[in-house]
Amino acid sequence: MPRSITAFSNPLVKRVRALRDKKARRKEGLFLAEGLRILTEAREAGRLPKYLFFTGEGAAHPLAQDLIVRTEAAGGEAIETDRDILSKMSGKDNAQTVVGVYREFRTALTQIDRTASDIWLVAQSLRDPGNLGTLLRTGDAVGAGGVILVDDCADPFSVEAVRASMGALFTQTIAAARWETFLAWLRAGPGELVGTSLNTDADYTQPLGPAPTFIVVGNEQSGLPPEYEAACDRLVKIPMLGKADSLNAAVATAVMAYEVLRQRRGG
Amino acid sequence: MPRSITAFSNPLVKRVRALRDKKARRKEGLFLAEGLRILTEAREAGRLPKYLFFTGEGAAHPLAQDLIVRTEAAGGEAIETDRDILSKMSGKDNAQTVVGVYREFRTALTQIDRTASDIWLVAQSLRDPGNLGTLLRTGDAVGAGGVILVDDCADPFSVEAVRASMGALFTQTIAAARWETFLAWLRAGPGELVGTSLNTDADYTQPLGPAPTFIVVGNEQSGLPPEYEAACDRLVKIPMLGKADSLNAAVATAVMAYEVLRQRRGG
Repeated sequence: MPRSITAFSNPLVKRVRALRDKKARRKEGLFLAEGLRILTEAREAGRLPKYLFFTGEGAAHPLAQDLIVRTEAAGGEAIETDRDILSKMSGKDNAQTVVGVYREFRTALTQIDRTASDIWLVAQSLRDPGNLGTLLRTGDAVGAGGVILVDDCADPFSVEAVRASMGALFTQTIAAARWETFLAWLRAGPGELVGTSLNTDADYTQPLGPAPTFIVVGNEQSGLPPEYEAACDRLVKIPMLGKADSLNAAVATAVMAYEVLRQRRGG
Repeated sequence: MPRSITAFSNPLVKRVRALRDKKARRKEGLFLAEGLRILTEAREAGRLPKYLFFTGEGAAHPLAQDLIVRTEAAGGEAIETDRDILSKMSGKDNAQTVVGVYREFRTALTQIDRTASDIWLVAQSLRDPGNLGTLLRTGDAVGAGGVILVDDCADPFSVEAVRASMGALFTQTIAAARWETFLAWLRAGPGELVGTSLNTDADYTQPLGPAPTFIVVGNEQSGLPPEYEAACDRLVKIPMLGKADSLNAAVATAVMAYEVLRQRRGG
């Protein structure tokens, strides 16, 4: 039986609200996701919230009902509240009618079975949480095994990244490592490391090597460091016909990932 | 000879700060762009600011010097100020060292020469300014003629859109029209209207019709309305192998635009 919270001063509301801050997420091992679509995506990926907040209006939806029942059956807590409190927790004026608090999850690099997919995305010092979320969403769409975060990336569990991922955060394997550790792991098995770069004439549509393909994208401002580029098996160039000579990092990764998919499909 | 502004209460600072609001932009016919990279992109595209603000530090850069000289030569005003005031104007804690105020520009649909490019991007009710900026950036990269905004889209002159465009706003032709007006214009000349959709089995890599290709992307939440889809010459599907079954709107457009480019290059 769901309990109800109506006071802004409720300690749990404060705790949840604090999860917008990275330090609080790390300390609690919890993060926030909002909206019926994303929470349903999470459920379908086998993840249920520790706390599920909903408005009376939100609970009327059959998918929300299902979430409430399953959350409680799995030992989580379903809590009725109001829209103002949901807004306070999520930091959005126009809050969703359901908000979930989930346990953070990460996979150790050594636990990854790289043969589980033909495509893996690797982000190096990607700083924008929106870009990281979009990358996760693209990873899901191309059937990537997951996203490996190298060096200092944005936090995939930040509210902005979760939102931009549209739930793909829950479907993608997420690992994190320093470059040296990643490279050592990579070289201990099959796979081609492909970097998109302006420092090559090799077109990105040229035939790739055998799967799995690891597509690595660098920092939004500076791209991949030269020594990282040198460690790639293949650098490829996405043609730039304009004046600005650059693509958004998540867009460039998506264009490359769909080219991998096109080649694997025999296109 | 640049004048100097050091007071937050300066009326021009207040006017510029107000440009973060759409109503003020429309009333003044002006908008804000930040950072040496974007302002230099604008200059290369032939656009100089009405007001150029810079810090003493910022002015030390040769590209900033060049901007100051050209802005003044073109009748604009170059104004030295400090970082706190730039932050106040741009609404960012960590402000750039140069900020420009530009005159808004739009091209009437009837003024567009569609044969100037093989690719045109069409956004219908795209609401996120970051997505719109990314779309402009992609348009520049694929050599698109411009972006046509149909129905109620985000404002391309908003701070977020300008930022996400990384200067491509200045290189791309921008027109706006209601759907019926756009469609009438489109049908009065050559060109294939291609929509990406989940409601078709036609793969996006199938051979396209003759140029120019108009790639239309719909609203982030709801996609293109069914009657708009019905008006397309071709609906194509970008494969979705994951659980979430969707791509970011700007990403989907980029994947399609690069496929057009690949086919035109004979790939």
